[in-house]
Amino acid sequence: MAKEPDRPSEMAAIARYFRPLATAPGALGLFDDAAILRQLAGEDLVLSTDMLVEGIHFFANDPPDLVAAKALRVSLSDLAAKGAEPLHYLLSLALRSDWTESWLSGFSEGLRREQQQFRITLAGGDTVRASGGTTINVSVIGRQPSGSFVHRTGAKPGDFVAVTGTIGDAALGLLVRQGRITLPREEGEYLVNRYLLPQPRVALAPALRQHASAALDVSDGLVGDFAKLCAASGVSGEIARPAVPLSVPARRAVATYAPAFDTALTGGDDYEILVAVPENEADALAAAASEVGVALSFIGRIVSGEDEPKIFDEGGQVLSFDGTSYSHF
Amino acid sequence: MAKEPDRPSEMAAIARYFRPLATAPGALGLFDDAAILRQLAGEDLVLSTDMLVEGIHFFANDPPDLVAAKALRVSLSDLAAKGAEPLHYLLSLALRSDWTESWLSGFSEGLRREQQQFRITLAGGDTVRASGGTTINVSVIGRQPSGSFVHRTGAKPGDFVAVTGTIGDAALGLLVRQGRITLPREEGEYLVNRYLLPQPRVALAPALRQHASAALDVSDGLVGDFAKLCAASGVSGEIARPAVPLSVPARRAVATYAPAFDTALTGGDDYEILVAVPENEADALAAAASEVGVALSFIGRIVSGEDEPKIFDEGGQVLSFDGTSYSHF
Repeated sequence: MAKEPDRPSEMAAIARYFRPLATAPGALGLFDDAAILRQLAGEDLVLSTDMLVEGIHFFANDPPDLVAAKALRVSLSDLAAKGAEPLHYLLSLALRSDWTESWLSGFSEGLRREQQQFRITLAGGDTVRASGGTTINVSVIGRQPSGSFVHRTGAKPGDFVAVTGTIGDAALGLLVRQGRITLPREEGEYLVNRYLLPQPRVALAPALRQHASAALDVSDGLVGDFAKLCAASGVSGEIARPAVPLSVPARRAVATYAPAFDTALTGGDDYEILVAVPENEADALAAAASEVGVALSFIGRIVSGEDEPKIFDEGGQVLSFDGTSYSHF
Repeated sequence: MAKEPDRPSEMAAIARYFRPLATAPGALGLFDDAAILRQLAGEDLVLSTDMLVEGIHFFANDPPDLVAAKALRVSLSDLAAKGAEPLHYLLSLALRSDWTESWLSGFSEGLRREQQQFRITLAGGDTVRASGGTTINVSVIGRQPSGSFVHRTGAKPGDFVAVTGTIGDAALGLLVRQGRITLPREEGEYLVNRYLLPQPRVALAPALRQHASAALDVSDGLVGDFAKLCAASGVSGEIARPAVPLSVPARRAVATYAPAFDTALTGGDDYEILVAVPENEADALAAAASEVGVALSFIGRIVSGEDEPKIFDEGGQVLSFDGTSYSHF
């Protein structure tokens, strides 16, 4: 693409906005074709990749630092759910044809803040021109002691089921943003912010390694992701809807717009961790979560069988849902 | 995105087209949020990521198996230039809204063939809806003995400069494809095919580790990438244009359309390896290349100084070029 007078060239943009983020020696200052990662015996690496597309996962007018944060955080959430700690990431960025230096600068500043908060560094990347809207790919590399990966497949009948944080905020925030529900301003903003900026529960990773029998991050909705965890583990399960943690703004949304409860439970983009924990480890997990400042709510049990897991309402009735899993496909 | 009746859901598409590619145990059959990679002491991992965008790096009507092959090969070429052998890759795929199952099937078949040829397996991925054209990201993970990474920075005055294969075919193939030059049909097809299907020199990786002082893969044009290698190494260099290996069809293009020579030297997408090799290792590198069936041509020397490296023509005149490096930015 011809360089436009008011924008830096690819090499200048990399030097200005990305090289300062590539602080690990193995990143070679982004000067080479690839990065080096010295292997450590006794540790496993954990790999995950996520692509975020303008108009689908974020919007053109979202603050670029929050777009950067979200791009990293959805992958950090995967690492956290598996018990891994962040190490490095590879970033690919397809920029829309009318990208501005101020957008790129804000995006880079967002990455810088995230790197500090989550102790992860840029190992390499690629910058290209987009076909349509900006498209971002982040591949994360995490680390954990060998054999401590928390699988989806380990849930056992009798395990308690818990979830971090609150559920449904992001999906309701999207409805607020689209003008489909109206809330008092501060509460609406809270939910929109939860949509824009997930809170990956990275701090909980060591406790999950130690206590969880299975876990995943809730990205496609609690109901659908609970079904996935149960199916992967060859078990069934039960969740009590009254036990599902909702934020105060989400409670308001549910109170004023009844279908919002279904949205909260099936809408996706929570990036909270759903965990199965043996009964005799539950107290220890709760204590560890409290110690690192992550809210943890017990919402159900794993049971034997291969039935679709059930969600019960206040009166003990089994709830049914239309779409149980959001697809970005 | 609403499921269309004639297309599989995201989960069904993953099961049918991608799960069979995830043969490594650590890929967990793509059933989990992340992949596990057991670390081996004594080895380094090598990481690289590349994004390919429809309309820029490939076209909507390109055969999908060749698009898949190209997406993998541009990253494999990075690994090869660094002396690394392929291990795993992460694939993100943003599909245009009118994607068809036959496209996805062809794409997956292309990946399967590449995996067999280059001994690499799928470790994880993400599938999303594109904003505009299909966009593909591949993050590759390679391996090599600790400390054997071939940097860009190691070229020393006196080193010989060599390049694999032939130069300029892909850039000329793009001109043929765009109807900007006309060649006899078979020769035109040869060049177009070189544009569509790069040949990463994976087989040369062990010899590069053993003999090269510096290397990179030529993706942005020989002239510009030679300048990058020299700048990274703090040296200058000389290339004799008559020594630059051209295929027979490229020679024909150059003979019939004079500016084609500049295109060949600056056009990019070669995915050949440019290597600096100490004089006393040059014979051994040539022998090793011959043994694995990779053509290697000696085209110049590294010299001291910090001048822009020079390209000489048949009469010993220094050539100048308008654009010395193709940017996909």
